[in-house]
Amino acid sequence: MSIKVVAFDADDTLWVNEPYFRKTEEAFCRLLEGYLSLHDLERELMRTELDNLPLYGYGVKGFTLFMVEAAIRITSGTLSVEIIDKILDLGKSLLNEPIELLGGVEDVLESLQGKYRLVVATKGDLLDQERKLRKSGLSKYFHHIEIMSEKDDANYLKLIRHLDIQPEELLMVGNSLKSDILPVLNIGGWAIHVPYHITWAHEQINHTIEHEKFNTVEHISEILTAL
Amino acid sequence: MSIKVVAFDADDTLWVNEPYFRKTEEAFCRLLEGYLSLHDLERELMRTELDNLPLYGYGVKGFTLFMVEAAIRITSGTLSVEIIDKILDLGKSLLNEPIELLGGVEDVLESLQGKYRLVVATKGDLLDQERKLRKSGLSKYFHHIEIMSEKDDANYLKLIRHLDIQPEELLMVGNSLKSDILPVLNIGGWAIHVPYHITWAHEQINHTIEHEKFNTVEHISEILTAL
Repeated sequence: MSIKVVAFDADDTLWVNEPYFRKTEEAFCRLLEGYLSLHDLERELMRTELDNLPLYGYGVKGFTLFMVEAAIRITSGTLSVEIIDKILDLGKSLLNEPIELLGGVEDVLESLQGKYRLVVATKGDLLDQERKLRKSGLSKYFHHIEIMSEKDDANYLKLIRHLDIQPEELLMVGNSLKSDILPVLNIGGWAIHVPYHITWAHEQINHTIEHEKFNTVEHISEILTAL
Repeated sequence: MSIKVVAFDADDTLWVNEPYFRKTEEAFCRLLEGYLSLHDLERELMRTELDNLPLYGYGVKGFTLFMVEAAIRITSGTLSVEIIDKILDLGKSLLNEPIELLGGVEDVLESLQGKYRLVVATKGDLLDQERKLRKSGLSKYFHHIEIMSEKDDANYLKLIRHLDIQPEELLMVGNSLKSDILPVLNIGGWAIHVPYHITWAHEQINHTIEHEKFNTVEHISEILTAL
């Protein structure tokens, strides 16, 4: 291993994220519980997301628009405007959630600092991710923050070029096999999976990965041993 | 002048943008014309934007959310859900507008290619700006696209570091004095203003610029002479 750069996914790798989205989804379902069963509400929200992700992309602003559209669709337009107003507020609350670091993260960054160039590689809304990094207090550890519209091979190759390194000099650490692990292995980098207890449906894959440059650890602090 | 990188703003510098936003605003006002005068509608939309820009940032998704919120505010929640649905459609149409290059742009890029590293420096939603660049057919001219949450001194300094150049090796070309010109002059770069016939209210400044590294041209093709 000749790793020069360790890149970290942000949401659910450095800090709590998915639980805030789940909480918001639950609040959304409570607003509309008179119209459909919980299960059907979740399915409709998911369907609206799938329909609109290619247009809106990731992040809270798109998610808020998905919720408004799904609510109108679910109720065939019969919901009250007050509910739509409450959905806008749910989106704003999500943007204002505090940053809760995951256990061990700061110790890991502290240990790696100076030995590797550390970067954040994430997707979502630009301003929102910058704000979360600032609120996290972790900015000082990072050389660069890369926000990608999609975490695919092409965008990881762009990151590699940008950092002026070879693929085998990159180690990516993250909770999503689909976004943080597979594309990085594809381009010739190293990857460590740190699973988080809940995963967004769009990030789930049914796939077992066997690869010489791949490792799974239970806790982020174990990447120190893996390195 | 020892310019190595020529950076171009995108919206209303390379291609038409603000007229599409204005068209959308007009459609928004038509939807609500029974509630307030045109002048008051525009003022309320502007006020909602100002209140929410720090939270949402730039781009079409935020703009769509501004419109929904403003519509609810303007009508005190008495509007029909159908109108909100139409506002969502206005936002989607805006994301799907064709890219109309401004006159002379491609010739300028063709001429500068190979002599300078060319980059795009823009703000807005990541996915949307990437899509617009792809649709424009201009990607091949650019070494890099930088999407900034705010075009301020700090983010231009980041761009300079990223490109590994000195400030005086950067020339920025754009239509906004506030976003494309002033911060670049502040950090020691060169700037050429190519005014566009309409400017978003948030980009307007009352300010005359006199600076040895600053120039205004009427048409983008004149930057070839200026260089």
